[in-house]
Amino acid sequence: MKAEIIAVGSELLVPGRSETNALYITGKLREVGVTVTARVTVADDLELLTSAFRGALSRADVVIATGGLGPTEDDLTREAAAAAIGRGVRRDASLLEGLRARFARYNRVMAPVNEKQADVIEGAVVLPNVRGTAAGQHVETEGRLLFLLPGPPVEMQPMFDGQVLPLVAERAAGAVLRTRVLRIASMSESDVEQAVAPLYKTFTNPGTTILSNPGHVELHLTAEGTSAEEAEARIEELARGMRERLPGRIYSEDGRDLPTVVGALLRERKLTLAVAESCTGGLVAARLTEPAGASEFLERGYVTYSNRSKVDLLGVDPALIERAGAVSEEVARAMAEGARRTAGVDVALAITGIAGPGGGTPDKPVGLVYLAMAGTLGERVRRAHFPGDRERIRHQASQASLEMLRRALLGLPAA
Amino acid sequence: MKAEIIAVGSELLVPGRSETNALYITGKLREVGVTVTARVTVADDLELLTSAFRGALSRADVVIATGGLGPTEDDLTREAAAAAIGRGVRRDASLLEGLRARFARYNRVMAPVNEKQADVIEGAVVLPNVRGTAAGQHVETEGRLLFLLPGPPVEMQPMFDGQVLPLVAERAAGAVLRTRVLRIASMSESDVEQAVAPLYKTFTNPGTTILSNPGHVELHLTAEGTSAEEAEARIEELARGMRERLPGRIYSEDGRDLPTVVGALLRERKLTLAVAESCTGGLVAARLTEPAGASEFLERGYVTYSNRSKVDLLGVDPALIERAGAVSEEVARAMAEGARRTAGVDVALAITGIAGPGGGTPDKPVGLVYLAMAGTLGERVRRAHFPGDRERIRHQASQASLEMLRRALLGLPAA
Repeated sequence: MKAEIIAVGSELLVPGRSETNALYITGKLREVGVTVTARVTVADDLELLTSAFRGALSRADVVIATGGLGPTEDDLTREAAAAAIGRGVRRDASLLEGLRARFARYNRVMAPVNEKQADVIEGAVVLPNVRGTAAGQHVETEGRLLFLLPGPPVEMQPMFDGQVLPLVAERAAGAVLRTRVLRIASMSESDVEQAVAPLYKTFTNPGTTILSNPGHVELHLTAEGTSAEEAEARIEELARGMRERLPGRIYSEDGRDLPTVVGALLRERKLTLAVAESCTGGLVAARLTEPAGASEFLERGYVTYSNRSKVDLLGVDPALIERAGAVSEEVARAMAEGARRTAGVDVALAITGIAGPGGGTPDKPVGLVYLAMAGTLGERVRRAHFPGDRERIRHQASQASLEMLRRALLGLPAA
Repeated sequence: MKAEIIAVGSELLVPGRSETNALYITGKLREVGVTVTARVTVADDLELLTSAFRGALSRADVVIATGGLGPTEDDLTREAAAAAIGRGVRRDASLLEGLRARFARYNRVMAPVNEKQADVIEGAVVLPNVRGTAAGQHVETEGRLLFLLPGPPVEMQPMFDGQVLPLVAERAAGAVLRTRVLRIASMSESDVEQAVAPLYKTFTNPGTTILSNPGHVELHLTAEGTSAEEAEARIEELARGMRERLPGRIYSEDGRDLPTVVGALLRERKLTLAVAESCTGGLVAARLTEPAGASEFLERGYVTYSNRSKVDLLGVDPALIERAGAVSEEVARAMAEGARRTAGVDVALAITGIAGPGGGTPDKPVGLVYLAMAGTLGERVRRAHFPGDRERIRHQASQASLEMLRRALLGLPAA
């Protein structure tokens, strides 16, 4: 089954606006085996909108429109959809009464313009909206399902989940899609590809796609089945093979990011942590404290941006900084050891590097980062050279530092 | 003039993919006065694609398609566009020769399938692609401009800038759009609206829209003119009035974010800074070090997540924490004063609060945050109660702390 999504509103056609509703609907439809073959964003213009509805209804089994159901003259979704299928609209008495009651509740008089929110396409079923004044509509025309939903995600989502998805799923009759995302932090996309391609190419269901991100690679496994259980079992079969080919490399299969995974491991093992950051400037600490519960393991963080702060707070020997440079394996080790000692924690991480764009030399280029770990999980140190701009270098350094800790927590050798 | 954008490719219709190309093109077209009235993303399906081209060409003056120009059987943009306008395709001899030469350069034999990349719609002009094998095409049909461009942004963008935009701009003949964004960190959307609505409602050009974000509000002023200078002058006239109505409140008119603005002020005044963070967990330091150049002013940061670290590193009196609680005005003040003293800096910021979701009490609910400043710019302290989830609370706290510092740097009273 094919679906198309129409997002209505001139305000959606400015740079920088992303399509929250379309992405939400696409994801949910995939899970019931319905593929979105086109999505369109249209300005508030009756002719344009009518043409968009006609086009979508000529191609797709299911058409879902969001937005344009408000009371203003720019809200034209009802009229356009009715025109596209050659039907009229009627003013629904019970919707009108509901609108009046809603206004009365807030002691306001309803302006006549609002009455248009009670207009319903001939033959359409009203989809109640408990969070706003714009009701949705559902109409079947020439074997195709058409849904009109309000634009605010907070109103649209529960209506879609409760009133649209079950109808579409029933029509789609049985085919269920499931996706699992495997995340890897310490390998390049091509290394991951090389390790798993010979395996996943022998599978047609699930299908596999590889996505590369700064600091991690994702394997998306999508399987179809007659039930959720069957789809999940198919995914698990392939995922098992991937785990064997990427031993210890997959840090998450359930959507969690690396700081969340590391935080959970520290809590489980009742270990305390301190971080000492130079070029990442607090990014590791900020990421570790993004999920709730960090107070159980994070004792403190040091943002030792200056040389003086490395000496004062972490007890790094000024002569060592002078001799080896602030960006060096020796100083990274000394920072980690100093953080462990002064904070009195089980484990400490340290990062020092050159995030750029300035400050690089032929010997120590932009992107050079030293990562160190000290404490009860053993000492580790790594020299890395990350590509990209300042933001990417800092993000990759924070990922590599957390991955170093994750591997130590699991008793895996350094990557 | 109206434009529509068609993004081609089934891989674009999965959840989580954003429309990089469409957003890029929308922004550039706005600058030459062309409004994007619809954008559509279509799967690799000849029938769907042909229908999408027909629809767009029936509505818009300019239609720009990206993607689907590769050599595989899924690459159907050429065929679909030709079918939609009722023309054939011809195999272009010089494109074919260029493809063969490209393969020869890498010592590879060109498979016959690649020849299709030399297919050009009858009457179309070839748009060279210096960064890849997929050439673009430009054809005029019934007074409408149709462009086919490759999908990879690195190939598409220079072709669009160099070969498409000048043609469209010439056709749009003179109307130029410019946008300026005014940013405000310390006021609610409704307070900003109340202050400036009486003014901007007297203007039709520029038009004004208000966007609310967690931690800041944006005023988007968009003006049309016959030249860039005229559009800018119109914007400046309205912006001047807004500055009068929002004295000292606008922190940026040039796209810079608050940490960048504060960093520049500190550098100008040659002041050094330390930050002491509890609930924000390093977020303020991480944001201040995102732009390059932070080493000129940021001496260090303290992520004092535990009570012990507040005592050890900042010299906060344990009895004070016991008496007033870690989340209190007194402790915030003591943290700022301790950070200033131990770091030996000109100014220090401190933040302590309850980011949630747990840890709230009736007296000290989730979202309660104390912000303090100590040092040569004077002492300031603020109690705030931020709405939203953990992420929003932390972000708003970091914004409010930076705004406190910005106002002090400019000699403005506390907000």
